Amino acid sequence: VIGPGSGRFFEDFALGEMIEHATPRTVTVGDVALYQALYGSRFVLQSSAPFAKALGLHDAPVDDLLVFHTVFGKSVPDISLNAVANLGYAEGKFIAPVYPGDTLRAHSEVIGLRETSNRKSGIVYVRTTGINQAGALVLSYVRWVMVNKKAETSPAPETHTPQLWEALSPEDLVPPHARFERYKFDLAGAPYRLHDYAAGDKIDHVEGQTIEEAEHQLATRLYQNAAKVHFNAHAQSTTRFAKRLVYGGHIISLARALSFNGLQNAVHIVGINAGTHVAPAFAGDTIYAWSEVLATANAHGRSDVGFVRLRTIATKNEPCGAFPCRGSDGSYPPSVILDLDYWVAVPR
Amino acid sequence: VIGPGSGRFFEDFALGEMIEHATPRTVTVGDVALYQALYGSRFVLQSSAPFAKALGLHDAPVDDLLVFHTVFGKSVPDISLNAVANLGYAEGKFIAPVYPGDTLRAHSEVIGLRETSNRKSGIVYVRTTGINQAGALVLSYVRWVMVNKKAETSPAPETHTPQLWEALSPEDLVPPHARFERYKFDLAGAPYRLHDYAAGDKIDHVEGQTIEEAEHQLATRLYQNAAKVHFNAHAQSTTRFAKRLVYGGHIISLARALSFNGLQNAVHIVGINAGTHVAPAFAGDTIYAWSEVLATANAHGRSDVGFVRLRTIATKNEPCGAFPCRGSDGSYPPSVILDLDYWVAVPR
Amino acid sequence: VIGPGSGRFFEDFALGEMIEHATPRTVTVGDVALYQALYGSRFVLQSSAPFAKALGLHDAPVDDLLVFHTVFGKSVPDISLNAVANLGYAEGKFIAPVYPGDTLRAHSEVIGLRETSNRKSGIVYVRTTGINQAGALVLSYVRWVMVNKKAETSPAPETHTPQLWEALSPEDLVPPHARFERYKFDLAGAPYRLHDYAAGDKIDHVEGQTIEEAEHQLATRLYQNAAKVHFNAHAQSTTRFAKRLVYGGHIISLARALSFNGLQNAVHIVGINAGTHVAPAFAGDTIYAWSEVLATANAHGRSDVGFVRLRTIATKNEPCGAFPCRGSDGSYPPSVILDLDYWVAVPR
Repeated sequence: VIGPGSGRFFEDFALGEMIEHATPRTVTVGDVALYQALYGSRFVLQSSAPFAKALGLHDAPVDDLLVFHTVFGKSVPDISLNAVANLGYAEGKFIAPVYPGDTLRAHSEVIGLRETSNRKSGIVYVRTTGINQAGALVLSYVRWVMVNKKAETSPAPETHTPQLWEALSPEDLVPPHARFERYKFDLAGAPYRLHDYAAGDKIDHVEGQTIEEAEHQLATRLYQNAAKVHFNAHAQSTTRFAKRLVYGGHIISLARALSFNGLQNAVHIVGINAGTHVAPAFAGDTIYAWSEVLATANAHGRSDVGFVRLRTIATKNEPCGAFPCRGSDGSYPPSVILDLDYWVAVPR
Repeated sequence: VIGPGSGRFFEDFALGEMIEHATPRTVTVGDVALYQALYGSRFVLQSSAPFAKALGLHDAPVDDLLVFHTVFGKSVPDISLNAVANLGYAEGKFIAPVYPGDTLRAHSEVIGLRETSNRKSGIVYVRTTGINQAGALVLSYVRWVMVNKKAETSPAPETHTPQLWEALSPEDLVPPHARFERYKFDLAGAPYRLHDYAAGDKIDHVEGQTIEEAEHQLATRLYQNAAKVHFNAHAQSTTRFAKRLVYGGHIISLARALSFNGLQNAVHIVGINAGTHVAPAFAGDTIYAWSEVLATANAHGRSDVGFVRLRTIATKNEPCGAFPCRGSDGSYPPSVILDLDYWVAVPR
Repeated sequence: VIGPGSGRFFEDFALGEMIEHATPRTVTVGDVALYQALYGSRFVLQSSAPFAKALGLHDAPVDDLLVFHTVFGKSVPDISLNAVANLGYAEGKFIAPVYPGDTLRAHSEVIGLRETSNRKSGIVYVRTTGINQAGALVLSYVRWVMVNKKAETSPAPETHTPQLWEALSPEDLVPPHARFERYKFDLAGAPYRLHDYAAGDKIDHVEGQTIEEAEHQLATRLYQNAAKVHFNAHAQSTTRFAKRLVYGGHIISLARALSFNGLQNAVHIVGINAGTHVAPAFAGDTIYAWSEVLATANAHGRSDVGFVRLRTIATKNEPCGAFPCRGSDGSYPPSVILDLDYWVAVPR
């Protein structure tokens, strides 16, 4: 029967299966401009081609999260069209720079499956890989989602929970392709270098950004992410939240753009250790963020650049001057919507 | 007197007149990215330059409807600034691919004129042609609009109603420039080929898209379409609908993007037989669509690709699982807003 | 202490100081497409690469105001993050064309300082200069802003009020790089030449554009303008206006796009004499505009092009058929939001 892809249900996944995702996508300066307009990012390496070329790159690289969202979007029709929840990320590695004109493809390997106790759904773990037109690895990350079963009585695949690193170690990270000996801190907007950050530092990113329906819809369609909860007010009106949900990746991009205030020289995201979308966000919400430095590290063989491990918390409708965070009982204040543990590269 | 173009009234048109439209427009990857963000299209040929090149094109072609809207927009100041209604389309042919960097110009020939019985307006038929920077024909279509008269007492031009084909026949269609022997169905997202479609098939495209004011305004300005009803809430507040009207072409593009669900390999629109904007749409409306296969046909001299004639119905705020359609009395259910009869190309 | 730039307060400025602004920005066809979608401009020189090349340019030039807003945006973090009000512009000169692919940098010289009588703030005058990747001057203008003091008791810098021209004279203007002997008026949309304009002419631009939150946010982020009042509904809710303010430059761009109705051949803005943001605008407001011709002038050594000095008034929620303007008592009607005095180039 001709029809829309209805997406896979939990019992449709097989451990070890490799799924080639549809719709390769050429990323252009048009996408870059839209990404700029959607988030207001001011990181200089991605903003200026001459600046990037002076550091040895071919062109200004495409924002790491635009790459992430594009690859993620490709995986949605095969992995998470029937997902109840996006539960987590791990082992995310940004491997090669993407330039305007490059084309991204993606595939995912099923690396874990576990039925939930009520037998109505199951958890699917996939390692999703993005590659460019030359076949070079660009990005790889693990995510796990709770996916509905088609029928409660269906037999579930055998349980396999993958071993995942709690965090990438600095040795696992691919240092930026650019060289930072001639990095101009004045053009970047702040003098902070790797040694200015220390574990335990807390940085309030101060500003807030209010989300509009048109904005998150434009963003999510730009990523060819077809998850229906983001676009259909009519169908959403009968759901628990009664409105469209903002794509979680939109919040990550907002938090990253806000983090410029204090992390002006965090030139690249190089790894994602863990991430939780603690609560949904909706149009009208104002997003704030703050970050804690978890660790700093040198980059092997590189005297020009190192790594900072960050935990960035994003909130809705609450400034972050008081650093709202997870309580000792494991619960989050109601304003917290994102808890992201990741590595950035910072010039030394 | 210096001033804005006030547009032509019915009595300003002359049969046989050729009108050169202003504002040639270079279409770029910037426009392509915005079009992507506005509709969320996932047709692979337009998404990936390497995919398109592997099929013999120079680059990923610009979406057919972005070309249509751009050409249409050029004709608005001369043809429909004083239009009461856009009544229909016919004989639309997509002739040559458009690539980023190409420049579109347009002209229209007045091929019919007919005063309405109340003498307050008249119907103007034009054949509008889009050409590229090399002077090659890109697109041609007929549309007819009801245009106000400046004065009821003005003498009307002699009546001439053009003979128009009810539908293009397959021989009239220009097959795609790409060759589809090496088309990769897995990268396109579905295995359906020409022979998978048969007259009478009905396809519910399932998903819905909610329109925002910012979105349809961005789209319509992107097309340089200056029809004021789309942009001015203040002036519209005193009209019958009391709000801005969404450009009818915006609905066509939404319906086309939604139709990916079931028509993943409808690689190009190649002809428009007829089209009616049954009712207006407004911001806040959620658009759904379904399609009926009217016919299939081979493309002359081509074993790699053929044609499917479709009728796509778009609705507002009503899913299309029940295939809402024109009744036997000729009337439409209140949810139906678009009834479009067109040809697409599908690999064999 | 690592943290966001908190911006300069009045007492942080020193007369004669040269401030290098951060974040050079490569402007691309992606930005051009977004600018098109945000304002709906139809000036042909900026719309068509072949048209521009036929007049001797390398490519379609980037809209003058996109250049202005980009340069302006760079200056915000250093000059006006703690500004209470943007008080005026003067001596704005557009010097060299900007093409897609060019990279803009900016710096500002502090040319005047004057504490206000209540000692809580001061007026800072800067001359901001935009340069391209080759170091060529692109744009230069003076603006003055009222900036808060950090502490009322801080000693203020010595008062210096710069001498500024009331208006640029035609000899100060840089004529367009294009040659207009072969300018095609039919493709531009109207036949008006320099000699069709005369001092005292008033032109109602007729149409209106309603602003959406998503639109002005997209625009202002595109310009990397980080002034928080435009983006944060949550923080703004406790301010006098209780909502986000629209960036004043957004209104200038809307007025310029609307001015196409009657100024179709005003191919470039070449100078800004003076400008006042009379009142704020908000999402939901519909912007109208009208213009008065203040003067016309030949361009030295050029028989193909001349200059028209315009005063453009923009209103909110009031059409401009009655030419609403400043009264004899110096006050403006409540609908007026912009009063801009500038020079445009028009073919002879």
